[in-house]
Amino acid sequence: MNTPLTKTKHIPFGDNKDAPWYGENILSVGQFSLDDLNFIFDIAHEMGVMVNSLGTFDLLKGKILANMFYEPSTRTMSCFTSAMERLGGSVIPIFAQQYSSERPEAALPDWVRTVEAYADVIVLRHPTIGSSKIAAQYAHKPVINAGEGETGEHPTQALLDIFSIREEMGQISGLNITIIGSLKNRAIRSLIRLLMLFHDITVTLISTSEQFFDEEFLQEVARVGTLILINKSVLDETILSFTDVLYVTQGTDIVVTPELLDLAKPKITILHPFPRGPELPMEIDSDPRAAYFRQMEYGLYVRMALLAMVLGKA
Amino acid sequence: MNTPLTKTKHIPFGDNKDAPWYGENILSVGQFSLDDLNFIFDIAHEMGVMVNSLGTFDLLKGKILANMFYEPSTRTMSCFTSAMERLGGSVIPIFAQQYSSERPEAALPDWVRTVEAYADVIVLRHPTIGSSKIAAQYAHKPVINAGEGETGEHPTQALLDIFSIREEMGQISGLNITIIGSLKNRAIRSLIRLLMLFHDITVTLISTSEQFFDEEFLQEVARVGTLILINKSVLDETILSFTDVLYVTQGTDIVVTPELLDLAKPKITILHPFPRGPELPMEIDSDPRAAYFRQMEYGLYVRMALLAMVLGKA
Amino acid sequence: MNTPLTKTKHIPFGDNKDAPWYGENILSVGQFSLDDLNFIFDIAHEMGVMVNSLGTFDLLKGKILANMFYEPSTRTMSCFTSAMERLGGSVIPIFAQQYSSERPEAALPDWVRTVEAYADVIVLRHPTIGSSKIAAQYAHKPVINAGEGETGEHPTQALLDIFSIREEMGQISGLNITIIGSLKNRAIRSLIRLLMLFHDITVTLISTSEQFFDEEFLQEVARVGTLILINKSVLDETILSFTDVLYVTQGTDIVVTPELLDLAKPKITILHPFPRGPELPMEIDSDPRAAYFRQMEYGLYVRMALLAMVLGKA
Repeated sequence: MNTPLTKTKHIPFGDNKDAPWYGENILSVGQFSLDDLNFIFDIAHEMGVMVNSLGTFDLLKGKILANMFYEPSTRTMSCFTSAMERLGGSVIPIFAQQYSSERPEAALPDWVRTVEAYADVIVLRHPTIGSSKIAAQYAHKPVINAGEGETGEHPTQALLDIFSIREEMGQISGLNITIIGSLKNRAIRSLIRLLMLFHDITVTLISTSEQFFDEEFLQEVARVGTLILINKSVLDETILSFTDVLYVTQGTDIVVTPELLDLAKPKITILHPFPRGPELPMEIDSDPRAAYFRQMEYGLYVRMALLAMVLGKA
Repeated sequence: MNTPLTKTKHIPFGDNKDAPWYGENILSVGQFSLDDLNFIFDIAHEMGVMVNSLGTFDLLKGKILANMFYEPSTRTMSCFTSAMERLGGSVIPIFAQQYSSERPEAALPDWVRTVEAYADVIVLRHPTIGSSKIAAQYAHKPVINAGEGETGEHPTQALLDIFSIREEMGQISGLNITIIGSLKNRAIRSLIRLLMLFHDITVTLISTSEQFFDEEFLQEVARVGTLILINKSVLDETILSFTDVLYVTQGTDIVVTPELLDLAKPKITILHPFPRGPELPMEIDSDPRAAYFRQMEYGLYVRMALLAMVLGKA
Repeated sequence: MNTPLTKTKHIPFGDNKDAPWYGENILSVGQFSLDDLNFIFDIAHEMGVMVNSLGTFDLLKGKILANMFYEPSTRTMSCFTSAMERLGGSVIPIFAQQYSSERPEAALPDWVRTVEAYADVIVLRHPTIGSSKIAAQYAHKPVINAGEGETGEHPTQALLDIFSIREEMGQISGLNITIIGSLKNRAIRSLIRLLMLFHDITVTLISTSEQFFDEEFLQEVARVGTLILINKSVLDETILSFTDVLYVTQGTDIVVTPELLDLAKPKITILHPFPRGPELPMEIDSDPRAAYFRQMEYGLYVRMALLAMVLGKA
């Protein structure tokens, strides 16, 4: 008679259970302290150095990532795939959907518990806010939130945005960050929350839709940093004279022209989460201050860092 | 002048042509003897031990699986992908379809002969019964039937169901297996056929749709084992008192509640092929006798075993 | 303070910057000389020898291919996936599309500059003629054109067709090549252009749609080789008596029957780009002169050669 396979949780061979993020979930920007960010960014920087010298290396050889996407997000899915492959691991692409034959409340938990039999880490993209939390509640393997719809949390995006600032400017504390575009999405809110962890940050928001920030959020931010709200579509010499980082998103009437950049600081960093709209003309792509393509690489390094961390390798 | 590349069939470097299943197809449960099942399950058990200690290992390094799915079956596709990656091999995902520009009778044979130029083993999911047999007829590489529509053969599902029973109960012979739910699909029929290969098996079927079993099948089973048909939706203390394995599927009015499980044997094993319907409430998921999530893992190990076998490594 | 990651272009560890095609794009058949073809085909032949003896080998271990398909082409996508995996590399499958929120003229350049952050080489399939040229203009990584719609360039198809002839016939110079079927696509035109690079080639075209060849193309060909146009659907003993290679495509009324092949040379090579229509009955598949399934393998070896070349390994 065979003995059943043991089901006891154990640390697979080669995993380091003392790694501080081993087995943890990445669900929300709210779970990060300033020390956490510095830890993540130090590892992400190392990942960049490794990729630039070796291309690929075998830190996660033998590990499998389940890329579980309930809605398409080709950019994010490709980035996580590359991150895992650059670390020598494998990927299971899962174009998931809710089937009519499934019980709605059981569908996500059941899928998570299926997929964790096949993979070592689950990256989840889902249209419904709160999904990654539910997934993490049921999964015995780490879950990484890769975006919850258009308006939910997208913590790896916020992390890569701030890592991009650090890599481009050498630091984050003391900077003036100007954000233009729609405030409809929580990504901006997550970005501001993380920025406010650093010392002496001023965030200037230029938007005609500032109504989406509620009083509670404004008071929360006011306790820790400086937030300037400019309720019209204007980006002039005065604002540019103190702007160190210009974070551009869709949904603004402002167009970041070469002429506008003539008024900006010589060392300004221009970021954009993409895809771009008319606010970001291709004419400025060749300006060395346009950092949004390097931002793609920084995103890769941040996601490599997170994967290595939750799998006990960093 | 170049000499053309040799087209003679040969054993690639590192393959063991003496492995008993080398180059064979897995098409139907009808091809397995009791010895075959024990052979497969012994290897599958080993696979589980290896996965639990190493995660991934390089038994099939350098081998390529073509995951050729003519209809979506995310669960099965993900499982085969994981199985191949856990063994160190690579996967080509193929979301195949019949194009209007193709000759219908040539489409599948031509696709198979295309794909076998790219891969070492073909896993085929197809809506039409008999497709995997046609594929195997044309392919020079092994073909594994990963399900033919809703009602056709799905031999790897039947194998994993029975392997789950062996892992959970330590044996199969002598057990009382109760199946509740729709008998509309051939999967149940395949499961029963395989069960009847073991000694002293009693299968109790509880369904209101037993008409789907024809007289011929009943007589076939009656020759080798005991089949009890209960033509109503009832699962009571009497039945539970002798049930060792409760195999639940969709299409029944019975709900397997915690109260019902209070009447069951302390060592009963509850299985379900998923996705679940109302018959399987989430309340029982935490019961250690609920084995349907472990069943996912067993499925992985069985598919790893089959891949290793047909590729000459087990 | 961190120093930003260096963005200077550099040769990653292990790449050979002296490889003649290192970092080059593969966009059009117009870029190849006769020496280039012989170079590519010599490497492709080696790839075939390696695949037949080893299956997979680690020439591109650590390299990542982005398979960026703006329209489905399962055959080509699977082939490039296999080519990369046979060389030990990894693949990011990208089912790309133009999103309505993207600026049309920025969409492809932005995608290319995103994807090049994740991968080492980009294979692009796109419905619009000229797309691969635009992609190459923006990318810092090599771009391989995997087909531009139904009528645009598909250089790797033309290369594999001619490599197939070389492997089957031992040479290309001096051959009589007969092409039957629609001339609606540029693939035939590309094929003829490449054939004309060889010495003493005669191409006979049998089609009712020869109007698709303009005077300019005919004059271009007439300067370097012999082109015979037969404006009706006939393939008779006279034509077959001098035909060394019969290249069949869809869109002809001719059916290549076993009876017709009785009239052909004993060493004729029959090719078809697939999928097939009624012009190619399955009855002739078993004829050893039917080379169209071996053509699939040759395609794999050509694409392996191209990937190794542009990544500095051949």
